[in-house]
Amino acid sequence: MSEIKDPKLAESGKKQVLLAEERMGGLIKIRERFENERPFSGLKIGMALHVTKETAVLVRTLEAGGAEIHIAGCNPLSTQDNVAAFLASEGTDVYGYKGETTEDYNRYIDAIASKKPDLTVDDGGDLLYAMHTKYKDVEIIGGTEETTTGIIRLRAMENDKVLRYPAIAVNDNLTKHLLDNYYGTGQSALDGIIRSSNVLIAGKTFVIVGYGDCGKGSALRAKGMGANVIVTEVNPFRALQAHLDGFRVMPMNEAAKLGDIFLTVTGDKHVISVEHIGLMKPGAILANAGHFDLEIDVKGMKEKAEKVENIRPFFDKYHMFRKYVYLCAEGRLVNLGAAEGHPSEVMATSFAGQALALEYLVKNKGKLDAQVYTLPEEIDMTISRLQLEAFGIKIDKLTEEQIKYLNSWNEGTS
Amino acid sequence: MSEIKDPKLAESGKKQVLLAEERMGGLIKIRERFENERPFSGLKIGMALHVTKETAVLVRTLEAGGAEIHIAGCNPLSTQDNVAAFLASEGTDVYGYKGETTEDYNRYIDAIASKKPDLTVDDGGDLLYAMHTKYKDVEIIGGTEETTTGIIRLRAMENDKVLRYPAIAVNDNLTKHLLDNYYGTGQSALDGIIRSSNVLIAGKTFVIVGYGDCGKGSALRAKGMGANVIVTEVNPFRALQAHLDGFRVMPMNEAAKLGDIFLTVTGDKHVISVEHIGLMKPGAILANAGHFDLEIDVKGMKEKAEKVENIRPFFDKYHMFRKYVYLCAEGRLVNLGAAEGHPSEVMATSFAGQALALEYLVKNKGKLDAQVYTLPEEIDMTISRLQLEAFGIKIDKLTEEQIKYLNSWNEGTS
Amino acid sequence: MSEIKDPKLAESGKKQVLLAEERMGGLIKIRERFENERPFSGLKIGMALHVTKETAVLVRTLEAGGAEIHIAGCNPLSTQDNVAAFLASEGTDVYGYKGETTEDYNRYIDAIASKKPDLTVDDGGDLLYAMHTKYKDVEIIGGTEETTTGIIRLRAMENDKVLRYPAIAVNDNLTKHLLDNYYGTGQSALDGIIRSSNVLIAGKTFVIVGYGDCGKGSALRAKGMGANVIVTEVNPFRALQAHLDGFRVMPMNEAAKLGDIFLTVTGDKHVISVEHIGLMKPGAILANAGHFDLEIDVKGMKEKAEKVENIRPFFDKYHMFRKYVYLCAEGRLVNLGAAEGHPSEVMATSFAGQALALEYLVKNKGKLDAQVYTLPEEIDMTISRLQLEAFGIKIDKLTEEQIKYLNSWNEGTS
Amino acid sequence: MSEIKDPKLAESGKKQVLLAEERMGGLIKIRERFENERPFSGLKIGMALHVTKETAVLVRTLEAGGAEIHIAGCNPLSTQDNVAAFLASEGTDVYGYKGETTEDYNRYIDAIASKKPDLTVDDGGDLLYAMHTKYKDVEIIGGTEETTTGIIRLRAMENDKVLRYPAIAVNDNLTKHLLDNYYGTGQSALDGIIRSSNVLIAGKTFVIVGYGDCGKGSALRAKGMGANVIVTEVNPFRALQAHLDGFRVMPMNEAAKLGDIFLTVTGDKHVISVEHIGLMKPGAILANAGHFDLEIDVKGMKEKAEKVENIRPFFDKYHMFRKYVYLCAEGRLVNLGAAEGHPSEVMATSFAGQALALEYLVKNKGKLDAQVYTLPEEIDMTISRLQLEAFGIKIDKLTEEQIKYLNSWNEGTS
Repeated sequence: MSEIKDPKLAESGKKQVLLAEERMGGLIKIRERFENERPFSGLKIGMALHVTKETAVLVRTLEAGGAEIHIAGCNPLSTQDNVAAFLASEGTDVYGYKGETTEDYNRYIDAIASKKPDLTVDDGGDLLYAMHTKYKDVEIIGGTEETTTGIIRLRAMENDKVLRYPAIAVNDNLTKHLLDNYYGTGQSALDGIIRSSNVLIAGKTFVIVGYGDCGKGSALRAKGMGANVIVTEVNPFRALQAHLDGFRVMPMNEAAKLGDIFLTVTGDKHVISVEHIGLMKPGAILANAGHFDLEIDVKGMKEKAEKVENIRPFFDKYHMFRKYVYLCAEGRLVNLGAAEGHPSEVMATSFAGQALALEYLVKNKGKLDAQVYTLPEEIDMTISRLQLEAFGIKIDKLTEEQIKYLNSWNEGTS
Repeated sequence: MSEIKDPKLAESGKKQVLLAEERMGGLIKIRERFENERPFSGLKIGMALHVTKETAVLVRTLEAGGAEIHIAGCNPLSTQDNVAAFLASEGTDVYGYKGETTEDYNRYIDAIASKKPDLTVDDGGDLLYAMHTKYKDVEIIGGTEETTTGIIRLRAMENDKVLRYPAIAVNDNLTKHLLDNYYGTGQSALDGIIRSSNVLIAGKTFVIVGYGDCGKGSALRAKGMGANVIVTEVNPFRALQAHLDGFRVMPMNEAAKLGDIFLTVTGDKHVISVEHIGLMKPGAILANAGHFDLEIDVKGMKEKAEKVENIRPFFDKYHMFRKYVYLCAEGRLVNLGAAEGHPSEVMATSFAGQALALEYLVKNKGKLDAQVYTLPEEIDMTISRLQLEAFGIKIDKLTEEQIKYLNSWNEGTS
Repeated sequence: MSEIKDPKLAESGKKQVLLAEERMGGLIKIRERFENERPFSGLKIGMALHVTKETAVLVRTLEAGGAEIHIAGCNPLSTQDNVAAFLASEGTDVYGYKGETTEDYNRYIDAIASKKPDLTVDDGGDLLYAMHTKYKDVEIIGGTEETTTGIIRLRAMENDKVLRYPAIAVNDNLTKHLLDNYYGTGQSALDGIIRSSNVLIAGKTFVIVGYGDCGKGSALRAKGMGANVIVTEVNPFRALQAHLDGFRVMPMNEAAKLGDIFLTVTGDKHVISVEHIGLMKPGAILANAGHFDLEIDVKGMKEKAEKVENIRPFFDKYHMFRKYVYLCAEGRLVNLGAAEGHPSEVMATSFAGQALALEYLVKNKGKLDAQVYTLPEEIDMTISRLQLEAFGIKIDKLTEEQIKYLNSWNEGTS
Repeated sequence: MSEIKDPKLAESGKKQVLLAEERMGGLIKIRERFENERPFSGLKIGMALHVTKETAVLVRTLEAGGAEIHIAGCNPLSTQDNVAAFLASEGTDVYGYKGETTEDYNRYIDAIASKKPDLTVDDGGDLLYAMHTKYKDVEIIGGTEETTTGIIRLRAMENDKVLRYPAIAVNDNLTKHLLDNYYGTGQSALDGIIRSSNVLIAGKTFVIVGYGDCGKGSALRAKGMGANVIVTEVNPFRALQAHLDGFRVMPMNEAAKLGDIFLTVTGDKHVISVEHIGLMKPGAILANAGHFDLEIDVKGMKEKAEKVENIRPFFDKYHMFRKYVYLCAEGRLVNLGAAEGHPSEVMATSFAGQALALEYLVKNKGKLDAQVYTLPEEIDMTISRLQLEAFGIKIDKLTEEQIKYLNSWNEGTS
C-alpha cells in the first residue's frame, strides 16, 4: 500500500543502499546479531525519518530483527525517490516522495500513525505528536527521537507533563550528536549550499547562526573551505567557545550587514527575520540546516518579496527591499533538500543508536516511565567499538597496573 | 612565615600579576563583588596550586573576599619565584620555589595542612590527601579540585567511601575543561615543547597520548603548527573522534615506531613505558602535560639509561637502547615546567570557577554530603557572561516569541 | 550553425550566466572598457574551452570588444547544456553537449578550426594542435592556453621548434595558477568527488597525486574537510613542501595500499596504473582533476575489469582483482564532469587574464615570435586591483617615504 | 681575537650546535662532500649573520670545505652567547654578544670587513654595504644575501649601478623563501610573541602587516593557534590571496582599531607609525619579524611615550596617548630577539643554499658580472633531495613512458 514516486526506480535505489551498507559497518554488525536474536519479532515500528539510503539500512536492520516497518518521510524535500522505491519493492510500507505537498506530508504521517505501531521513531517529532493528539489511544512501548529540534519538543512535553510513553533522546548519544551533528552537518550543509548556489566558499564571510554541535561542525568546515566565519549565539558559553575558536561573535543585527552566506542551525524559530534581511548585502545567500523550515522566516520573506524567481534547482532569488537575496532549498534542511543528507559513515553510528535504543525500549518494556531518557554511556562505547572495528582501527587497552592506578588515590606527586 | 626563593623578586612578580589581571577580566568582576560581600570573612583557605601569576590573581580575589590564604605549590617545577615573592610581600603565606626538592614539596603541603584550613583548594589532590591521612581531625567545610587527575583520585576515594568532606570538581565546569584544558593546554604544551627542544613542529609526526580535552586541544594546535598527528587512546568513542578529526589512530606499540614527538595527557600511569621507548626512533622527544610525572615512566627510564645528559634547560638526553631520546621538563607538566602554564585568558574562567565553587561551599555549608559535586550549569553561564563582557563581546538574546516556541511542542513541519 | 543539446534550455542558461556575472566583477570591469575600445573589432576568435557559465561571461566580454566567437568544448563531459543553449540563442557559434562522443568531440574542434580564427583560445591545446596539423595554412595572430597540461604540450612544441605562432601561457599568470588552480580546484574537485560518491571526507585517507598548485589546493581542502592526506610527487621540492605542510609523503606503491580516495592532478600520464589498483583496498575511490583522462589508466582498467557497473551518476564500480574500486566521472576532470567546475569568483581572474592576453596579442601583432610567452606581472596587478574593487576591498598604498626607502640602500641596522 | 660574552659558555654552546646538526641532515651531507673537495681552500669568508646554533653548523661546514671564517652578528639582539663561545673555542673568529650596543654592532661589522674577505655572506646587507663604502678597494669574488630586506637593498644598488661585485640572492631559492620564510617565520615569530608576552593566541585579533612568504607563514600559524587574522598589504595580488585564504583585508588605519596583536613582516619602513598607535586599543601588542627595527616606528614611539616600562624580558610597556601598548623585543626581529630564531630543520635548506651559493661563486669566479643572481633551479632540487633523504622520505620517479609523454604534444583528448 506504499505511496511512492515511481516503482521503476527500485534498482537504482538498491545500488545506493548497498553502497551505504559498505560504509555502515557498525550498524551491519548489529544487524547480524539481530538476525539471530530477533528482538522485534511480532512488533510494528512506525517511523517518520528522512527516507534516504542510510535510513533504508536501518529499516533493513530492524526488519532483520523481526520488525514490521511502516515509514513516512519527515521532511517534504528529503525523500530519495529511488530509495523509497527499493524499500517498497522489498515489502516495506513506505510513504513519501521528494517535493511532496504539505497535505501529502501530513497524510503520510497519519498513515503511519494509523497503523498502530508498538514503537515510534521520529526525527523532529511529528509522528510522536500525532500519537499524542489524534491517536491517543494506541498503546505504545516507547519512542525514539533523532534530532535536537525534536528533543526540544520532547522536553517541552515532559515539562508540560503530557508525554504519555517513554522516549529515548537518541540525539543525546555521544555517537549521535558529537558525530552526526558535527561531522555530518559539517560536510552536508556545505555540500547543499555549494550544490544549490555554486558559490566559492573561500573568501566569503560566512555567518553561522547557532554554535551547538551542528553549528560547530559547520563553522569548522566553512573555515576549512576558506571562509571567514562569524558566529551568532544566545548561549554565552557557546559564544565564548566560538570566540576562542577564532571566529568573530556578534549579534545578528551586526552580522546581517557583513555576511555573504548565512546558515541557521539552532532548533529555534525566526533566527533570521525579515528585518535582518533588510540589513543584508545584495546577493546574500541564506540556508538552513535546522530541522524545521521556520529558522529563517520564509513565510515573512514570501509576504515581503516583490518577486520570487527560481534560478537553479533549490536556489530562489527573492527580490525585496530594493535588492535581492538568495534562499537555498526553500529554507528547509539544505543538506537534505539540495544534497543527500549526512554521509553513510556518520549515519552508521546514529542509526546504531536508533537500533539499540529500540532494543532497549523492548527489553525494558514496562519498566520505564513516560519521560525522556538518555541511553547509558556503555551503549556509546559499544557503538564506537563496532564502528572502529568496521574501519579496521585498533586501540590500546588499559593494563592491570593502570586499572589499579586509576582506582587508587594514594599515589601523588613524587 | 613564607618560604620562597628570593623576596627581591617581588617587584618583577607584581608586574606579571598586574599583566595577568588585565587579561582576566571575568575574575576581576567577581573580585569587585567579593570586595563588597566578603563571603570568606574569617575563613582560612589552604591551597595547593601552581604558584603562577594567574593563581596570584585568584589569591588576591579570595583575599578581597575576606579569606586568609595559605598556599603551596602543587608541582616541584611550576612555581614562578617572582610571583611567590610578590604574594609573600603582600602578606600571603606562601611556600614553594621552582625546582624544589621532593622533600621540600611534601614539607610545604604539610605546612598548609597544618594551618587547619576551613576550605581546601587542590590541583592534583595532594592537600586533600593530607587532610585525609595525617590531618584527619581538622574540620573542613569543603574542598575544590582543579584537574582531571585529581578528580580521578577523588572519584576513587568516593568509591572507596573514604571521602570525609564535600568536594567540588571544578574541572567539570564547561568553563574549565572545555576552555582551560582545551585552549590552555593546546597552546602551553606546545609552547613548553618548543621552548625546551626548539624543534620545528611542521612536518613532525606528533603522537598525542590521550584524546580527552587536553589531548584534543594539543592535537589541534600541533596540527595548526604543521605536524602530522597520531592519537592513541583506550576509550573507543574518543578514538573514533580522533579518526574523524583526520588523525591516525593506533596502539602505542605502533605509534612508538613512528613518532618524532610524544605528548602524554591522560591522567593515567606509564602510558609511555620503557618498552615503548625501546621501539622509538633515535632522537624522539618525550613530554608530558598530565598532572603527575608518572605518565611517562621516568623512573624506569632513569634505571635503564646508561647516561642522562642535560642539553638545554628542561631538555635531557637519555642514552638507552643504543640510541638516545630526549625528555622535556623531567617528565613533569611541560607547560608549567618549561613554559609558563596556561595563559591568563583561560585561567580567568577556570579560576572564576574556583572562586564561585568556594563561595558555593560556604553558602551551602552543612547542606552538602561528603561526595564529589559538579556545579550547576548556571554558574558556567555566569562565568561566560562575565568573560564575554570583559572581552567586549555582545551576543543575541532570545525574543519572547522564541522563548515561547522553545517551550511549545505543537508547531511541527509546515 | 551551432550544434547543441536543446535550444529550449537557453532561459535556464541565461540565469546561470547572469548569476556568474554577479560574481565576476573584475572581468565585467574589463568588459566595460572593451565596450568602448572594441579591441577585437573585425577579428574571429576560435575557442576550445569548457562551456560553462563562467566561460559564457568571457565569451560575452570578448563579443563586447568586437570579436566574432566560435566555441567548442574542450572535454566531452564538461559542457553545460543550458549555457551552450543560451550562448547560441545570443548568436554565438557553439558546438558541444554534455557526454558527447569522442567522434563529435573531434568534429567540433574541427568545426572551430575550419572557421579560420585570427586568435585561438585553448584549454588543453586541442584547437592549437588542429591549427598545427590539419589547418597549417590559416594565418593566426596568436593563441592563449589556460591550463598546466596544455602548457606542458606547448613547451614540448617549442622545444621541438614546431610552434608556428606566439602563444601566451595564461596559466603562468599569478592570478591564474595561484588562484584558479589552487582555490578553484581545491573546492571543485572535492565537490565533484562528494557529488559522485557521497562519501564522508572526514577520517578518510586521501591520496593527492601531484603537489603543484592544483594538488596543494586540493590537499588543503581535503584536510579542511577532515581527511588524512598523503601526497605522492616526483619533484623533490614539492615533496618537501608537502612534508612540511604536515602530510605523509611516499611513493605511489605504498600510498596505493593506504588510500581510501585518490585524486590525480599532475598533467602527466598513468600516474595511477592498473598495477597500483591491484595494491588498493576494496572500495577505493579514484578521481582525476588533471586535464586529460589518462592520468588514471582508464583504458587499462576497462581491459582488466571483469565488470563495470554504473552505481550513481558519474560513479562506476570496476570489478577487478577479485575486489572492486570506484571511478568518478570516467576518469575525466571530476570537477567539471561530476560538478560544475571552478566557481565564478576564481574564473573571474583567470578569464580576465584570457581577455587581457588576447588584447595583448592583438596590440603586439607582428612583434611577437612563435614561442611561449608569460604576461608581464603588471597585468596580474591590474587584474587583482579590479577584482579587489569588485569585492569592495581597500588596501594600503606606499607612502612617499616608503617608496624612497625601498629604493635606497644606505639605511641599515640602527 | 674574537670578542664574545663569555668563553665559559662554550660547552653549553657545543650541545646546542650538535643538537642542531642532528636536524640539519641536508647541510651535513654537503659538509661531507666539502670535506673531500675542499672548495674554499685558501679563501677567507666574511659573514654578518645571526650567530645562532644553525649558523654555527654553516660555519663548520664552510670550514670543513677549507674556508677561514670571520663572523659578526647582523642584529644586536640575535647572538646566542653560548654558540659564539663555542665557535670561538674552535678557532673561528667571532664578534658579538646578545644585547650589544649599536656602537659595538658597527665596530664588529667593521672588524669583519677589515679582514679583507674573498667572499661576503650577509643577512640584511650591512657587511656588503661596508665593502661598498669604507672598504671599496678589497677585491671580492662575490657575496650572498640571505633575506628579503637585504635583497631589496641589493636591487636598489643594482638599479643605481653601484654594485661592485656579483651577489647571489639566496632568498630567491625556493628552498629558502618558500621554506625558511614561510615555515620558519611562521613558527618562530609566534614563539617570540608568546615567550615575550605570554598571551593566549586563541580568540585574539591578529594583524599581519605584509603577506609575502613570512606574512603568509605567520598568518597560517596564528590561525592554527586560534587567532582571527587580519592582513594589510600594498600589493593587490597578495591582498587577493589573503582574502581568499579567509582573512579580512583592510588598510592599516582600520586594522589598527581592531587588532590585539600586530606583527610586521614587510621589509619596509614605518608600516606601523605613531599615528597608527594612536588608533589602537589599550594593551595592544606590537612585534616585528622583518629584518630591520624600523618597520614599527620605534624611534617615534620613544619620542612620543610619557614612560617606557620593562614588564618582562623583551616586553616593554609604552605609556602614550593616555593608554599603553606593549612592544616585543624592542621592535627588533621578535623571533631572534625573544626566541631562538628559525628552527634548525628549515635553516638546513636555507644554509645548504648559502653553502652551494658560495661554492657557485668560487666555481664561476671571473665569469659573473656585478649584478644580483638567482641560482639555477637545479640547486633547489639538489637541496630538496638531500633534505628528503635526511628525513628518510622516498618519492616517485618518472617512468620512461611518462618522460616521453611530457615531451610529446600530439596526445590530446581521447
